[in-house]
Amino acid sequence: MFQVTEKLATEKICEGDYVILYLDVRRTYMVKVKTGKTFHTHKGYLKLDELIGMEFGATVRTSLGVEFAALKPALTDYIMKSSRKTQITYPKDTALMVIFSGIGAGSRVVESGTGTGALTTALAHYVKPTGKVTTYEIREEFQKAAEKNLKRAGLLDFVELKSKDVTAGIDERDVDAVVLDLATPWLVVPHAYDALKPSGIIVSFSPSIDQVVRTTEALKENNFVCIETVECLMRGMQVERGKTRPHTMMTGHTGYITHARKALRLKVTHEENNATV
Amino acid sequence: MFQVTEKLATEKICEGDYVILYLDVRRTYMVKVKTGKTFHTHKGYLKLDELIGMEFGATVRTSLGVEFAALKPALTDYIMKSSRKTQITYPKDTALMVIFSGIGAGSRVVESGTGTGALTTALAHYVKPTGKVTTYEIREEFQKAAEKNLKRAGLLDFVELKSKDVTAGIDERDVDAVVLDLATPWLVVPHAYDALKPSGIIVSFSPSIDQVVRTTEALKENNFVCIETVECLMRGMQVERGKTRPHTMMTGHTGYITHARKALRLKVTHEENNATV
Amino acid sequence: MFQVTEKLATEKICEGDYVILYLDVRRTYMVKVKTGKTFHTHKGYLKLDELIGMEFGATVRTSLGVEFAALKPALTDYIMKSSRKTQITYPKDTALMVIFSGIGAGSRVVESGTGTGALTTALAHYVKPTGKVTTYEIREEFQKAAEKNLKRAGLLDFVELKSKDVTAGIDERDVDAVVLDLATPWLVVPHAYDALKPSGIIVSFSPSIDQVVRTTEALKENNFVCIETVECLMRGMQVERGKTRPHTMMTGHTGYITHARKALRLKVTHEENNATV
Amino acid sequence: MFQVTEKLATEKICEGDYVILYLDVRRTYMVKVKTGKTFHTHKGYLKLDELIGMEFGATVRTSLGVEFAALKPALTDYIMKSSRKTQITYPKDTALMVIFSGIGAGSRVVESGTGTGALTTALAHYVKPTGKVTTYEIREEFQKAAEKNLKRAGLLDFVELKSKDVTAGIDERDVDAVVLDLATPWLVVPHAYDALKPSGIIVSFSPSIDQVVRTTEALKENNFVCIETVECLMRGMQVERGKTRPHTMMTGHTGYITHARKALRLKVTHEENNATV
Repeated sequence: MFQVTEKLATEKICEGDYVILYLDVRRTYMVKVKTGKTFHTHKGYLKLDELIGMEFGATVRTSLGVEFAALKPALTDYIMKSSRKTQITYPKDTALMVIFSGIGAGSRVVESGTGTGALTTALAHYVKPTGKVTTYEIREEFQKAAEKNLKRAGLLDFVELKSKDVTAGIDERDVDAVVLDLATPWLVVPHAYDALKPSGIIVSFSPSIDQVVRTTEALKENNFVCIETVECLMRGMQVERGKTRPHTMMTGHTGYITHARKALRLKVTHEENNATV
Repeated sequence: MFQVTEKLATEKICEGDYVILYLDVRRTYMVKVKTGKTFHTHKGYLKLDELIGMEFGATVRTSLGVEFAALKPALTDYIMKSSRKTQITYPKDTALMVIFSGIGAGSRVVESGTGTGALTTALAHYVKPTGKVTTYEIREEFQKAAEKNLKRAGLLDFVELKSKDVTAGIDERDVDAVVLDLATPWLVVPHAYDALKPSGIIVSFSPSIDQVVRTTEALKENNFVCIETVECLMRGMQVERGKTRPHTMMTGHTGYITHARKALRLKVTHEENNATV
Repeated sequence: MFQVTEKLATEKICEGDYVILYLDVRRTYMVKVKTGKTFHTHKGYLKLDELIGMEFGATVRTSLGVEFAALKPALTDYIMKSSRKTQITYPKDTALMVIFSGIGAGSRVVESGTGTGALTTALAHYVKPTGKVTTYEIREEFQKAAEKNLKRAGLLDFVELKSKDVTAGIDERDVDAVVLDLATPWLVVPHAYDALKPSGIIVSFSPSIDQVVRTTEALKENNFVCIETVECLMRGMQVERGKTRPHTMMTGHTGYITHARKALRLKVTHEENNATV
Repeated sequence: MFQVTEKLATEKICEGDYVILYLDVRRTYMVKVKTGKTFHTHKGYLKLDELIGMEFGATVRTSLGVEFAALKPALTDYIMKSSRKTQITYPKDTALMVIFSGIGAGSRVVESGTGTGALTTALAHYVKPTGKVTTYEIREEFQKAAEKNLKRAGLLDFVELKSKDVTAGIDERDVDAVVLDLATPWLVVPHAYDALKPSGIIVSFSPSIDQVVRTTEALKENNFVCIETVECLMRGMQVERGKTRPHTMMTGHTGYITHARKALRLKVTHEENNATV
């Protein structure tokens, strides 16, 4: 019914693989498996050699006998571990931006700014294996971090990193989606219009309301339709029979998500007008 | 740099295509283009023949001169238009379930229940072109609606519809994700464990807190880890310089999303036990 | 220890009293008890005479045998029943405005606009029996409704209704709080400063963000401190063992509440200035 | 029109008064004015003697020339400063509990538990000058803190502190409201029924859903009606032209508020029935 042998073979932990070591929801660590390397925790140390050859999902014990699960990193792990400390990319926003963008395998996407590649990681994950993400960033220090993070996630092949100012123009044409997370998205809207194919989708993320207003105005002026802005609040739950309740602390705001679709301009020429006379 | 000719050729509206006719955010209609068919609105009628040969994104005028944009349906359109009236599948929940599930092109997913296929549509969209969604449903009337909706979205090839009770067992093995939206997810948890490959992910959607508690208990008993439950509130914004504000009405609750990953059970052998004697 | 006799005597329903007839959370009616009057519901009719002499809290039966509780109206009933249909005053906002304002028995408050008196009702309730609410309104049709609503709630004695434009000035001086719910609160801020006693509190309710920004700027310019803006989301719960969950629909936005306190301007005298020469 | 002289006389800061020293929203300090006392901040020190004779609302300068406003404490200051560090009483919840309870000047209220008196402070503020709050607490260490906090707020005269277990019974009868914030509110519901006058209101605050379910069941069994549970989310805004946005962090959950009203039991006895024959 399915190919266990081959499949499971690829699910064994190998030298060079990334592994999520999971103790509890707050204590998860992403490590690169390397012979001779030791991973130290407050609950004792782990010799990473021991992981080699184990299946993903296996339980390992530290020197102090505490159990960790050795999980295969999931998309959300790569996103979270690629975030900047000062500006976390939350799965809730990433997920909404992806679904509104309409992208899937084979899509061609333009993104800006790259930052440390958290959102790029998600976009590349969804366009692979036949699509491409072209991502613009002017700050070089970020581009290097992004490249490292995309490589770690095995997604660098689906991304083109450009050291260019996206507010000066987008080189690509006929792309499926333009995804923006930068300070002045309204300056990119006209370029996004040129880059998108008809009916193509733009998605923009902005922390402040003023950015949203300016971006929305630019979208209206540039013949975008289906313009909508939402914000998303995600709240974690403490689930335990007899003690179930939402968590006390939550992130109250990350940003607003604005999305719209490119409509074609009506090309009413003099000839056409006269024709009806 | 890219193939305009070929690409644009495929973006012309053809007989049989689905088109989103967009007037404003509240008035969007999905129509199937058919020669001789007329679409009536409060703003006049449209002869659908006229759309044939136009580019997606083009603007059309009704008999009363009102402009509609003729957009290519996006994923969110297919999801929304596949929802049951009594239980809308919201993009916010779909998006989170997809991102937590970790799926992408090539993933093998088990889903239940199929319902009218709104969530199935999203899952199929993300696993195409090389993955597969197997979806279980016991209510036959839903399955037919789901099949129709998936066909309309061009995603039926990536879905296997099963008329089976998922609480009695899952046939598949070594799948990447199990995605649940049914009344008693806790009864499916042991089967999901058997079906998932190690480190595989389960995601469950439930409206009530009691379902969440039972499901979480079942996940703990069945050796799942990284168990987390969240709820997501999405609020639309009215964006207009000088009058910007959140919308008055919002959906206050749809359901909770619980997700977890399969860890392997410790296989304590006799040798290990004896060693301590 | 307390006077049962006298107390209970006043708790009997009398001719002219208002009574809340309660069937369930969605079906509550405020009626005025009058000899000979009949109240018709989908569940049969009630002769209101029968209520006279009963205790508040008593259960009555309609002609069809359906039970209603005859409750004494509470503050929230008077607030809700005084709201305009197009702009409901929500207890959540009223409650926060009252607590931020710091008012209590004996406080002197200026309010504007009066509207139909929903917020006035709450303010009067909390300043009675020794305080006073002076409320400004330029639309005469509202003032009459407000007067009627305040009379019904037994609070008219603690309110002065003024037919004046508050943006042109406030007559009162040395008041404890100024409470605003009108389109241009920033125009009232300088007048509020003059009307308030030192350390007095201003509270303003505005639906749009732009109103909040302008009001905040006016507060800063006019030497107010402790300036803070919040919004409050209230969500109802469906509570039933095994089916507990938040309600599906909720009010997503009513308005923002901005509050601040009056600080005194530094009176820099010539002597001080010269001292530094 | 008003008595400036007398009024302002009472608004001068005196020895023994509490003053809020306000630098910015995050740095506000409540101090007791005392001759010879010095208040040290990171921005220099203040000799508190200097405040004596100044008006509330005046601006003072520290030894380093930094300005603080010397404000009269408002109700919310007393509430916040009376909170336990481990369980903050939020004005949003206090405000809703107060408004749902329907209390005002003259009301008689039973509260439990007292805790450190934060909620008691609010209740006493609203029932003064003619009402009374009787508050039950079994943990003596809290009662002392509560007494100190109520005294500081000038509200001790309106409160009776009882060292008693409220789950064993309530002594008072014919009270207007019972307000609960304790671990097992459902055990108090029958006693609250006995203590309340007909149509009286019970309000209960509970962090967990399970407490809400049990309390709601107890309310139904004990002939309470108008039973409703809500939760309230309050989010602060950063207001600054061009940079306006909700604050990043917010309190995601404090607790649910359940409120209900006492209906009278139908006392249809055989005798009564026969009497009408």
